[in-house]
Formats: sequence, structure tokens, C-alpha cells
Amino acid sequence: MQIFKRFSSGQLPLGRIEAFSDGVFAIIVTLLVLDLKPPDLLHKPSVSELGHGLLSQLPMFLSWLISFIIVCKFWLNHHYIFGQARSANYALVWLNSIFLMFQSFVPFPTAMMGEYPSNPLAVSLFGVVMAVNTVLFLALQMYIVNNLLKPEYVTLKDEHFVKKAMIGPLFYLLGSGAAWIATPLAFVFYMVTPLFYITPPSNTVKSAE
Amino acid sequence: MQIFKRFSSGQLPLGRIEAFSDGVFAIIVTLLVLDLKPPDLLHKPSVSELGHGLLSQLPMFLSWLISFIIVCKFWLNHHYIFGQARSANYALVWLNSIFLMFQSFVPFPTAMMGEYPSNPLAVSLFGVVMAVNTVLFLALQMYIVNNLLKPEYVTLKDEHFVKKAMIGPLFYLLGSGAAWIATPLAFVFYMVTPLFYITPPSNTVKSAE
Amino acid sequence: MQIFKRFSSGQLPLGRIEAFSDGVFAIIVTLLVLDLKPPDLLHKPSVSELGHGLLSQLPMFLSWLISFIIVCKFWLNHHYIFGQARSANYALVWLNSIFLMFQSFVPFPTAMMGEYPSNPLAVSLFGVVMAVNTVLFLALQMYIVNNLLKPEYVTLKDEHFVKKAMIGPLFYLLGSGAAWIATPLAFVFYMVTPLFYITPPSNTVKSAE
Amino acid sequence: MQIFKRFSSGQLPLGRIEAFSDGVFAIIVTLLVLDLKPPDLLHKPSVSELGHGLLSQLPMFLSWLISFIIVCKFWLNHHYIFGQARSANYALVWLNSIFLMFQSFVPFPTAMMGEYPSNPLAVSLFGVVMAVNTVLFLALQMYIVNNLLKPEYVTLKDEHFVKKAMIGPLFYLLGSGAAWIATPLAFVFYMVTPLFYITPPSNTVKSAE
Repeated sequence: MQIFKRFSSGQLPLGRIEAFSDGVFAIIVTLLVLDLKPPDLLHKPSVSELGHGLLSQLPMFLSWLISFIIVCKFWLNHHYIFGQARSANYALVWLNSIFLMFQSFVPFPTAMMGEYPSNPLAVSLFGVVMAVNTVLFLALQMYIVNNLLKPEYVTLKDEHFVKKAMIGPLFYLLGSGAAWIATPLAFVFYMVTPLFYITPPSNTVKSAE
Repeated sequence: MQIFKRFSSGQLPLGRIEAFSDGVFAIIVTLLVLDLKPPDLLHKPSVSELGHGLLSQLPMFLSWLISFIIVCKFWLNHHYIFGQARSANYALVWLNSIFLMFQSFVPFPTAMMGEYPSNPLAVSLFGVVMAVNTVLFLALQMYIVNNLLKPEYVTLKDEHFVKKAMIGPLFYLLGSGAAWIATPLAFVFYMVTPLFYITPPSNTVKSAE
Repeated sequence: MQIFKRFSSGQLPLGRIEAFSDGVFAIIVTLLVLDLKPPDLLHKPSVSELGHGLLSQLPMFLSWLISFIIVCKFWLNHHYIFGQARSANYALVWLNSIFLMFQSFVPFPTAMMGEYPSNPLAVSLFGVVMAVNTVLFLALQMYIVNNLLKPEYVTLKDEHFVKKAMIGPLFYLLGSGAAWIATPLAFVFYMVTPLFYITPPSNTVKSAE
Repeated sequence: MQIFKRFSSGQLPLGRIEAFSDGVFAIIVTLLVLDLKPPDLLHKPSVSELGHGLLSQLPMFLSWLISFIIVCKFWLNHHYIFGQARSANYALVWLNSIFLMFQSFVPFPTAMMGEYPSNPLAVSLFGVVMAVNTVLFLALQMYIVNNLLKPEYVTLKDEHFVKKAMIGPLFYLLGSGAAWIATPLAFVFYMVTPLFYITPPSNTVKSAE
């Protein structure tokens, strides 16, 4: 079809796309801190009042920590899959933009979860957004593997990488479901899931020895 | 004239201008999310209160989505026209700065439209700002095509690209006008218009085969 | 002296310093828009209420516009003087950092002037901050010209560039003083002054033909 | 062990890691200014009211200044140690991410100290966060020196650099403790400590002549 042909046209150097993406990632992780506001207290709170204020913000700090690790993990894997692409076309630019759109959305569910940590809806939303992000990342990866792979990576594709990659969304959704039983359980799921991808899966595309 | 000569002097490498522009684009799309605040509710809202709070923020999410797509579209086309320039002079730097100034203004009408989605003035403003942005982008493009085009692109200029490029501002202004009849109609215009430029017009400057 | 020797040591490539500076400039110009908030009105303001709200924000828009142009002007001139340096040492890094510190301060006097446009102190502060910025930029430029100039620029230094460069701080301070007579007069000074440097002074260092 | 082996695998070019880090540093220093808000006063404050408002914000300006210098100092030293690395592996990426996480946290204790400058807990927190940052930076440096050093730097390692590097955390913690005696004393410690590292320690790794 005409429209598909138009998207697969264009042969862009990867440099500016990576620069744009790196910029967005860098801003997201740094903006996360904007939701950490000093507790709003009396004009001159005592030490114990300020201490209590900080303690009551603990869920906020925990949400920040989880999101920071998750976004860094996405950055590293993004770095990895773009290293396998030989160039970009318009389809890749748009898949990347939509992925970045949902990445840049991360501060919202992070703030929700930090502000209403005992509300199942707020905590559950976080898992859904992360599952969507993981699926969008997978779409980006599949597009590169199937259409833009550098020749040296082609020979030894791992047919099972998609199946393995579904662990991410599955665990985020399990966490999201767990929020309706007990919100702390969801926090555990959200903390554990990024650890699966803490380094790029070395077997996605077996490097040609 | 003296002043024009001064502007057309200077031969700057494109690298830092693109880096500066990419930075501004990356920050704009990411800052858009700052207007998405968790609904301000009671200390411990119930699930249904929080759900209602989120639903009432739907126009805000929609404004964010539209602006995100529009700014990414501008980024891609910016990428495209700078790829045709052989270098930059001071005139290009300033045309680019003024264009970026209006791009960086985008979060303001986005927040206006998200906050007052049924107010014709607020919704109408969004279209006007986008029309101005499109015109400024066209000025940037015309300047490159007429003054700084790489030799390999010169031979096959498309004389009609300016006429074709007027579809953008026209549709944004139609949307802006439609806001005074029915604001949801304007949202439709704003969502459809960027699709015309979702990939750089392959016929602006016919690539030399 | 030991300390001076330590600062003039180090031979850093310019790449990361320019990248860091470009990042800071890009963020400053984009952050300026964060002070442009939709007017805080009733839940569903009428068109005329919203229109009045926007009109009362005019000084805020004007402050934003002036600051945007000034920061872009600094960016262009920064670009220009770093293009004349052959490398960086620690002294340059710190002169640059202090300059960027005062650049990043710009949103504060901009917000002050936008919020209290008829208060002489608020409007006057803007001029003082800009004068300091101009002087710091000059210090950066003098350091490069005297210590780090590329050989091809050395032969034809313009001895008078420092004297000429004093026009900037002088006019900003005149504007700052004028604020105590009539604040709109200061706005005029602040708008006119950057025009002197809208393109890098072609005679700072005469390019070797 | 399996997990350590996985982390030490991966051979990434340094370019995108430096770009990501530079982005984060640039955003942090610029975001610091967001906590500098015009004093919230009557609609049209008099000059003396505004003057008093600004004076009462002095601790806020001082906190901003200290943090700006500290983050720039970290940036320069980060620049320096990455210049000695020959490439990156996943372990370095994560050490760097965790370091950047705590860097991006800096605006929080800065705002705390600026808002509650006479509260020992608030002022003390700043020193603890800076001590943690210094230790994390040292971890990053030690990892590079022990695992990823460019061959030309290997020959003349300074065995004592770790001991010398402990001055930083020690002084920040002394400042942190001093806050419980007199908060202004802590400000003095926080201002003096970065001066030890104002240029990269020339003897960390003696450059091979």
C-alpha cells in the first residue's frame, strides 16, 4: 500500500534520532525529581515535624526510585537495539516517537503512585503504563530486527526473543492486578520486573563470532 | 543593504545548531507532561473518586497527545530540511531561533486547551499558534531551499512546494474557526492536520536520482 | 602562582563542553515558557473573562519574548567564540560554568518582571542580571582571545573589541536605571540592547583572509 | 559468578553514555533555578515590600549557588574520568546511572535547605546527600581505573588516590554534623568542600609523559 511504502522510505542517519532520544530520556529521569517537593509545613517547623513530614513522603521517594531504574533500563536497551540498526526510515522514527511519548508519560503514573500509594487504582495504573511501554519497546525492537538489521547481526537471529520479551509486560500486569489485593505487593512486582532486563538480553540476536 | 549582508554572512557548521534544536525539541515534548498533574483530591480518595478525577482530565490528556504528535512531526521535518542545507549563516540561525521560540510556546496553548476545553477562545488559540508555527517552519524551509541548498538537491526543485505547504496553516485556521461553532470539531481538525506531514513531503525537492 | 597554574593546565576537547553548554541553553529557553501559566480563573470562564485574563498577562509574554531573544543571542555568540578556541583548559571550563550559572538564572528576573511589571525594583533587577551576564560573557571571550585562540585568528586581533563590547552592559544598566523613572522605558532598553549583538561582531577578531 | 560476568560483558562506545550524562547534568543545573520563585506578595507590592521579600529569600539563593558549583564540579570530574576509559560495559552504565540518580536528586535537598535554612535536619540532609554523591563518584572512578583504563594511563597509577578522595565525603559529613550545632557553620563547610576538587586531581592517574 501507498502509505506503508511512504513510511518505509527515507534513509536517515541514526545520529540525530539517538540524540533526540537521549535528550528525552535524560529529561525524563531528571524531571522525575520535580515531584519530590519539600514537605509543606509551618513556617519554621521543628526537627521532629520536618522528620515526620519526610517520613510521610517515603512512598513518593520509592516511586521515584523505581521509575528512575526503569527508565535507565529502557535507555540502555534502546541504546543496544539502535546499535544493531544500519539506518532509520520514517516508520522507525514514528515507532520511536510513540515509544518516547509513553516514556515521557512515566512521570504522571509515578506522581499518582507516590501521592496515593494506598489507592489500588493509582498503583495499578503504574503497572499498566509500564506494560504498554514494554510492548512499544518490543515493537521498536521487532521492527529493527525484521527490517533494518546490520548484516553482521542477521545470521544468528534468536527466534524466541519475542516470547522471552513477554515476561516484562506479563509481570507489570501481574503487579497491576496485585494492587487490587494489596498495594505493597504491587510495589514488589514493579521493583523486581526491571531486573530481568537490567542488561540487554545477550541472546536476542546472537552476535556473530 | 548592510544589515541583510551581515545576516547572510557567517558560515557555521550545522552540528551545534542541530544539537541546540534537538535539545529544544526534546525538552518541549517532555515538558508537555508537566501539565499532567494527578487530580487534586481529598487526602485519601476512594477508587471511584480517583477514577472520576482522572476521567475529568481526559481533555488534558488529549491536548497532550495532539501536541506531542505535532512537535514530533515538526522535529522530523526539521531534521529533513536541515539535511538539505550545506551550512548555516546568521539569517538561518535567527529564523531557526524564532521558529524554536514558537515551538517552545506550544505548552502554553496546550495547557489552555486542556484546562478550558469547552471555551472557544482557549481552543481557538491552539490552532492559531500551530498555524504560526507552520508558517515559520515554511519560512525556514524556503530560506534553505533558496539560499543554502546542497548542490545535489538543486537540479530538481519542486516549484509547487510552497502552495502545497499552505494546507497546514489553512487547516489549523479552519480548526481555529470551527472552535467557535463547536469545540470538539476543532479537536478533530487539530488531530487530522499533522497527518498531512507525518512524513516529509517526498516531492519538496525531488532527490536527484 | 600554584593555583593559576593548576587552572591553566588540562587540555580538554571542546566537544563535551559545547554539548553541556548547548544543553543548558536549550533548557533555559524552553523553561522560560513554564512561567506562562493559563490564567487562573473560575471553573468555566466565559470567553470575555478568559480574554481579559490573557490580556492581563501581556507583560509576562513580553518578558518571555525579550528573554528568549537575549538567550538565543548569547547562544549564537557563545557558538562563535568557542569556534575560535583551539581547546579548553580548566580555567575556561569554570569561566564557562559561572557564565552558564548566570544564564540559568535568567528565568528568575524574567518571572519577576512578568509578574510585577510596574514595580521599579523588579524591572530594574532584570537589567542588572543581564549586565552581569554580558560582563561574564566578555570575560569568557577575553580569556579565549588572550590564551586559547586558534593560530589562524591570532594575526589580526581587534584591540578595540573590549571597548565596543561595553555597549551591552552600559545599555542594560541604563535600562535598569530608567525603570526607576518609568518601567515601560526600561522594557524599550531591554528590547533594543540585544540587537547590537544580533550577529557576532565581525571585527572582534578579524578573520585572516 | 554468572551475574558479574553478564555485567562486565558488553562493549559500548562512550559517545551515547557521555551524551546522556551531559544531558542529565545540564538539566540538573538548570532545574535548580525552578526553585527560585518570585516572592509571593500582594498584587502590587511596593518597592520596599518586594525588597524585603527578596532579602528573605537569600538562603534560597545561597543554596542554589552552592549546588550549582557542586554539580559543575562533578560534571568536570566526570568528564575527566570518562576521558581515561577506553570503552564502557554494562557495569559502568549502571554505576553511572546510579550516580546520576543521586545527582538528579540534588534539587530536593537544595530546596529543603533553601526553604528551612535554620532547621538542622534540613541543612544536615544536604551534606549527607552530597557525601553519598561523592562516594558514588569514587566508585565510578575506581571501576574505571581498575577495569577500563586506557593503556596509556595504566603505567603510573597513584595508589593513594582513594585515600585522598575521602576528603570530600568526610568534609560533607562534618558539615552535616555541624548543622546540629549551628546551621551557618554547615553552609561554610558546603561552600568550601567543592573547592578541593575544583580541578580534577592531577595525580589520580599520573599521565604518562
